[in-house]
Amino acid sequence: MSTTFRPLKLGMVGGGRGAFIGAVHRMAARLDGKYEVVAGCFSSDPEVSRESARDIGISDERAYSSWQEMLDGERNRPADDRIDAVSIVTPNHLHYPVARGFVEAGFHVICDKPLVHTSGEAEDLVKLVDEHGVVFGVTHNYTGYPMVRQARRMVRDGAVGTIRKIIVEYNQGWLAKRVELEGNKQAVWRSDPKLSGPAGAMGDIGSHAENLLESITGLEIESLCADVSTLVPGRALDDDANVLLRFSGGARGVLIASQISTGAENDLRIRIFGDGGGMAWHQEEPNSLYHTPLGEPQQVLKRGNPYLHPAATRIERIPFGHPEGFIEAFANLYGDIAEHIRAAKEGREPDPAAEYPTVHDGARGVRFIERVLESGSSTEKWIRM
Amino acid sequence: MSTTFRPLKLGMVGGGRGAFIGAVHRMAARLDGKYEVVAGCFSSDPEVSRESARDIGISDERAYSSWQEMLDGERNRPADDRIDAVSIVTPNHLHYPVARGFVEAGFHVICDKPLVHTSGEAEDLVKLVDEHGVVFGVTHNYTGYPMVRQARRMVRDGAVGTIRKIIVEYNQGWLAKRVELEGNKQAVWRSDPKLSGPAGAMGDIGSHAENLLESITGLEIESLCADVSTLVPGRALDDDANVLLRFSGGARGVLIASQISTGAENDLRIRIFGDGGGMAWHQEEPNSLYHTPLGEPQQVLKRGNPYLHPAATRIERIPFGHPEGFIEAFANLYGDIAEHIRAAKEGREPDPAAEYPTVHDGARGVRFIERVLESGSSTEKWIRM
Amino acid sequence: MSTTFRPLKLGMVGGGRGAFIGAVHRMAARLDGKYEVVAGCFSSDPEVSRESARDIGISDERAYSSWQEMLDGERNRPADDRIDAVSIVTPNHLHYPVARGFVEAGFHVICDKPLVHTSGEAEDLVKLVDEHGVVFGVTHNYTGYPMVRQARRMVRDGAVGTIRKIIVEYNQGWLAKRVELEGNKQAVWRSDPKLSGPAGAMGDIGSHAENLLESITGLEIESLCADVSTLVPGRALDDDANVLLRFSGGARGVLIASQISTGAENDLRIRIFGDGGGMAWHQEEPNSLYHTPLGEPQQVLKRGNPYLHPAATRIERIPFGHPEGFIEAFANLYGDIAEHIRAAKEGREPDPAAEYPTVHDGARGVRFIERVLESGSSTEKWIRM
Amino acid sequence: MSTTFRPLKLGMVGGGRGAFIGAVHRMAARLDGKYEVVAGCFSSDPEVSRESARDIGISDERAYSSWQEMLDGERNRPADDRIDAVSIVTPNHLHYPVARGFVEAGFHVICDKPLVHTSGEAEDLVKLVDEHGVVFGVTHNYTGYPMVRQARRMVRDGAVGTIRKIIVEYNQGWLAKRVELEGNKQAVWRSDPKLSGPAGAMGDIGSHAENLLESITGLEIESLCADVSTLVPGRALDDDANVLLRFSGGARGVLIASQISTGAENDLRIRIFGDGGGMAWHQEEPNSLYHTPLGEPQQVLKRGNPYLHPAATRIERIPFGHPEGFIEAFANLYGDIAEHIRAAKEGREPDPAAEYPTVHDGARGVRFIERVLESGSSTEKWIRM
Repeated sequence: MSTTFRPLKLGMVGGGRGAFIGAVHRMAARLDGKYEVVAGCFSSDPEVSRESARDIGISDERAYSSWQEMLDGERNRPADDRIDAVSIVTPNHLHYPVARGFVEAGFHVICDKPLVHTSGEAEDLVKLVDEHGVVFGVTHNYTGYPMVRQARRMVRDGAVGTIRKIIVEYNQGWLAKRVELEGNKQAVWRSDPKLSGPAGAMGDIGSHAENLLESITGLEIESLCADVSTLVPGRALDDDANVLLRFSGGARGVLIASQISTGAENDLRIRIFGDGGGMAWHQEEPNSLYHTPLGEPQQVLKRGNPYLHPAATRIERIPFGHPEGFIEAFANLYGDIAEHIRAAKEGREPDPAAEYPTVHDGARGVRFIERVLESGSSTEKWIRM
Repeated sequence: MSTTFRPLKLGMVGGGRGAFIGAVHRMAARLDGKYEVVAGCFSSDPEVSRESARDIGISDERAYSSWQEMLDGERNRPADDRIDAVSIVTPNHLHYPVARGFVEAGFHVICDKPLVHTSGEAEDLVKLVDEHGVVFGVTHNYTGYPMVRQARRMVRDGAVGTIRKIIVEYNQGWLAKRVELEGNKQAVWRSDPKLSGPAGAMGDIGSHAENLLESITGLEIESLCADVSTLVPGRALDDDANVLLRFSGGARGVLIASQISTGAENDLRIRIFGDGGGMAWHQEEPNSLYHTPLGEPQQVLKRGNPYLHPAATRIERIPFGHPEGFIEAFANLYGDIAEHIRAAKEGREPDPAAEYPTVHDGARGVRFIERVLESGSSTEKWIRM
Repeated sequence: MSTTFRPLKLGMVGGGRGAFIGAVHRMAARLDGKYEVVAGCFSSDPEVSRESARDIGISDERAYSSWQEMLDGERNRPADDRIDAVSIVTPNHLHYPVARGFVEAGFHVICDKPLVHTSGEAEDLVKLVDEHGVVFGVTHNYTGYPMVRQARRMVRDGAVGTIRKIIVEYNQGWLAKRVELEGNKQAVWRSDPKLSGPAGAMGDIGSHAENLLESITGLEIESLCADVSTLVPGRALDDDANVLLRFSGGARGVLIASQISTGAENDLRIRIFGDGGGMAWHQEEPNSLYHTPLGEPQQVLKRGNPYLHPAATRIERIPFGHPEGFIEAFANLYGDIAEHIRAAKEGREPDPAAEYPTVHDGARGVRFIERVLESGSSTEKWIRM
Repeated sequence: MSTTFRPLKLGMVGGGRGAFIGAVHRMAARLDGKYEVVAGCFSSDPEVSRESARDIGISDERAYSSWQEMLDGERNRPADDRIDAVSIVTPNHLHYPVARGFVEAGFHVICDKPLVHTSGEAEDLVKLVDEHGVVFGVTHNYTGYPMVRQARRMVRDGAVGTIRKIIVEYNQGWLAKRVELEGNKQAVWRSDPKLSGPAGAMGDIGSHAENLLESITGLEIESLCADVSTLVPGRALDDDANVLLRFSGGARGVLIASQISTGAENDLRIRIFGDGGGMAWHQEEPNSLYHTPLGEPQQVLKRGNPYLHPAATRIERIPFGHPEGFIEAFANLYGDIAEHIRAAKEGREPDPAAEYPTVHDGARGVRFIERVLESGSSTEKWIRM
């Protein structure tokens, strides 16, 4: 006989009123009922933190004024009443200290991207996570789309043969104007090196592009040559980056990340060309995957169909033709992380199909950003990863 | 100072293990944290009902064995602990008795479509809802898409001028085979007249098409001529219907509803042609709306942009380019219904922007289905609505 | 050893300065070098006829003032110097007398659509063509697209199994305004019953839709029920028609032909649903054909690929990815008609792959138009073909 | 009173049986009746040249065995009977000597791309063309599409504001296999450095991409950094090139040219991002142009509409919605070159709207290819143009 299901208890650092990504994390946590948000330090302003908590039904008692206070508060609660995991959804500069604090205290962590500012910090976190044996997910959320999972399986099972070339692009246009001067909260912190780190567009979206290509293809970037620019005058960080890539084994690639691509919205797309076929996926139309076996008609695979790989069908909620979107993909990451946390709590192996971007993936992204900036902003040369 | 938010308490009739639409209703209820599901009669099999309840964290105490038992059980709880509303997600034949029971007891109701089997039942429900003053939403969920709300506002504000013609289609292909013989639970009850009612495809999806066209255009169908067929041999109910429409004021229309359109997935689409422009929307690509002012280039309006009407922007969760899908649209209905329920509880007027398909819309849909069957299956003539 | 190629000699009736379709016929004739236009009566105004002839390099001697004069003039030239065939590109009301005259004189004929005004005239022409043994092509040009030929072969070879349903649409918006009052020459004659015949949109484009569906599927329309309207006030002929179709064997269909579909350009499209798959083609994107075998991913077949049927590849000029368009499709009809004319001249059998819409197809179209008008404008009932 | 139109007399070098591009040039010349092909040396094999001539109705007398013989033969005909211009459609290595010969003899020239092998040869040709005052067109045919002309005008009139970034791609997949070993005639000469020149994909299609971006934007490439590869083992020339671009004034760009992009057909596309808007065009769907003014919905401009610039509408043949394709675009170049040749013959100024890629454009393309190879294959550095 079954027992009554109990959702995981989640805390949150960041994500108060007016924040974008915190709300997304909460919807992702809530959608499938696998988590309940029970505590949080939603803002560095105690009043905002408390008001934000009340907005979502969290009592004042667990609306903390600082992440350190939250860490102490939760640590001191009875084991079955404290949070199981914390979501870190602050501006980038706080990822490192907060993640470090919670990992050291033995909490599982879900951290937004890019992981941290420097590869030194990243290596430090990797080491700590290994030491403390916690689950540490980085929300490179685009790998949560079922058709990205499908692509990953198909590519790795040979659907395009040996890969020769990859084009991955992440074009946005929302920073074509200096909206950071017009009070756009997202733009303000993203264009401030102190909060966002050394990278602008590369950190914000370039790291997603790198993660997507690595996740699907498994190819290792061997060397790169980048052109990194600030094309909107007066901005402190890069808003456009174009990178030539060479992979182990000889494949070639192009990675484009831009936030000044006027008219583009959230145009993340990847094309993969192999000696046996081609494949394409586009985030704005995420329920389709395009596969052209060499010499045959293009096939359009669509989410929800029985002909898909179990890696894609296991994370579907609704039948084909009923579009799932960004929040559902995000929730798929949360779901797979939940499975790993539950397995850890229950002392069992997790479902091997449950996959998520780990601290290692996050650290690789940080190194990639560093190398792109090195090639693109200073040396203007090919450099090795 | 704000107070801590408390979600509405929701009960559910139907939607146990293996059901499709019940899970969708729960995700829609949960996504924005506006409801918590606290009770239910999830199946007519008490064991399945209890197991289904446990799956979603509901205690055995509120896992009821029949809807009558649930009605009694909840009615007898203290006012602040009983459910605020019930979602009815059973096969169609139970909509009427269950809805009637809960309305008469003063509970707010969210009922799946088609509302009931006959226009007699529909009129009865309309009368009861009026008498008891409860909120009664019918989940013609496609009107929850932001770009459908945008279309509605634009059309009513004159973006296409005077409407001359409407083509609305709902093409599905999942019943191209007799999957009802292969154990497909959705197909089994939908192809059984005792559970599904007198209409097959017309009831299941034709009523959505009618609702979509009425919701956007506000036009009244004056007369119709239908061809209603069962194209897969051996099936008891219609699986294909094509309807010529004439509207008050002289506009013409075509409505197509089919579940044997092999290769189609959930292909609901509408095109509206007026003397000042044309408009098109497609459910499988729901974040775009196509508007062609007479003599000008086509414009592609996309969800999340500041140039949209507040009716569309008020129900958005994430920025442009981040696709929202079916569940989000469903949740928008739940959200607007929640606002009406809260207003009723608090004795205030609801936000005038909060809109949802009411029992009146549901009843109109039932009459439409009846008239289509009358024209299409028996008289083979034009008939007046 | 080969001999030097000589193009067929073509005459033209209609198609002078300012005409649209005459120029298209000339480009179609010229594109592949299979014809040279050597004579014509391009206008009923002798001056316009002569000026139009000079524009395209035809001497005054063969620029005739009336079609009767042209018929006489060409008949009296030496056999190897007279025209082989005549293209009739006048307003519809002249198709019958001109075609009759040239057929009786033994000339091959290429006639624009709709063939004639009445089925009586059509039967008469059919009889004459049979008697005189001439080649008689009707330019239902959309069947000249390679991917329509591909669809025809695939459907007839079973790619969709037994057909259950067909939706064919021809949506245009250019008559959404009364452009016939603003001097639009195309609109003027098309909206004048004396020149255009009893049908407006149905004759102009509805007959193309009927031809397309018949050409691809081979299904016979058994009965129909139509709604035919004039939706722009003041216009003398129908500008919108919607038709329910029943085919021999039980398949169902919908045919839509409208010229008031604001925003639509030349939106001819067909969808075919069978028990083994679905297929779709769209004239505005003519190089693609969509095929979804039951239970499999959609396949996008593209013009120019070796995986296509010889019926499609034999009429291609350029490699895949290089779009061919409307004129090329038109030229494919001209090319296949040329093969039939050459075979007739040389007393041999034509290449069996060379196919074109014949006078029989044209006559069937005229009957279809008549029946649609009968059902749609007067009886408002289902009628048999 | 008008005089009877006489087409220009065209000769051709190359383009015999089995050739692709020669047939395209002939269709482009013939489509609008502005040229007649009257002479040619269609092959270096005299027999093939004569047979090819007969195929298209050219007498043996003007079917030459070598281009030198043709030059002599035509020069010695009476002025009103000799060719007006010659089209050079040989493999690349013959462009230079043939073009040089005909230019020096005072004939107008239409030459396929890339113009020649080296920038030395290119400069030489530029000088000769200037000296002899002949018309010299290079068939960068993609600029003949009406919507490319529209883009050019709009961009130059400020529709996207100041350009910040350009992405131009030309992806093909037909060389994903070594079809040059399987007798594909196009592949054989294109992969042989003696016939094709030092560049493979860069020369064949990269030069089109460069021309397209220059033609639309007018921006000057200041420096570039390229990655040029041969990704199919055993091939002698590059089949994949990716280039970072910097333009005068600070804009950035990416140019991609590949013939191993499995599944791609003839996927030439350009995206332009400015501070006032974005624009996109795609060769495989050439009748549409996408324009997104900053902060407004995307507009889809379509060929044939009155809202377009005269530069686009003047080269249209058929109404909107009737697709024009590759051959029509090619014919537009031929048409504008014809106007320049006629003006030269008549001693008048040509229509200022008649535009075509000149020998200067061709020479710039050759220099671009050289610099890309220099950066991409040897230095692996940024280099200045």
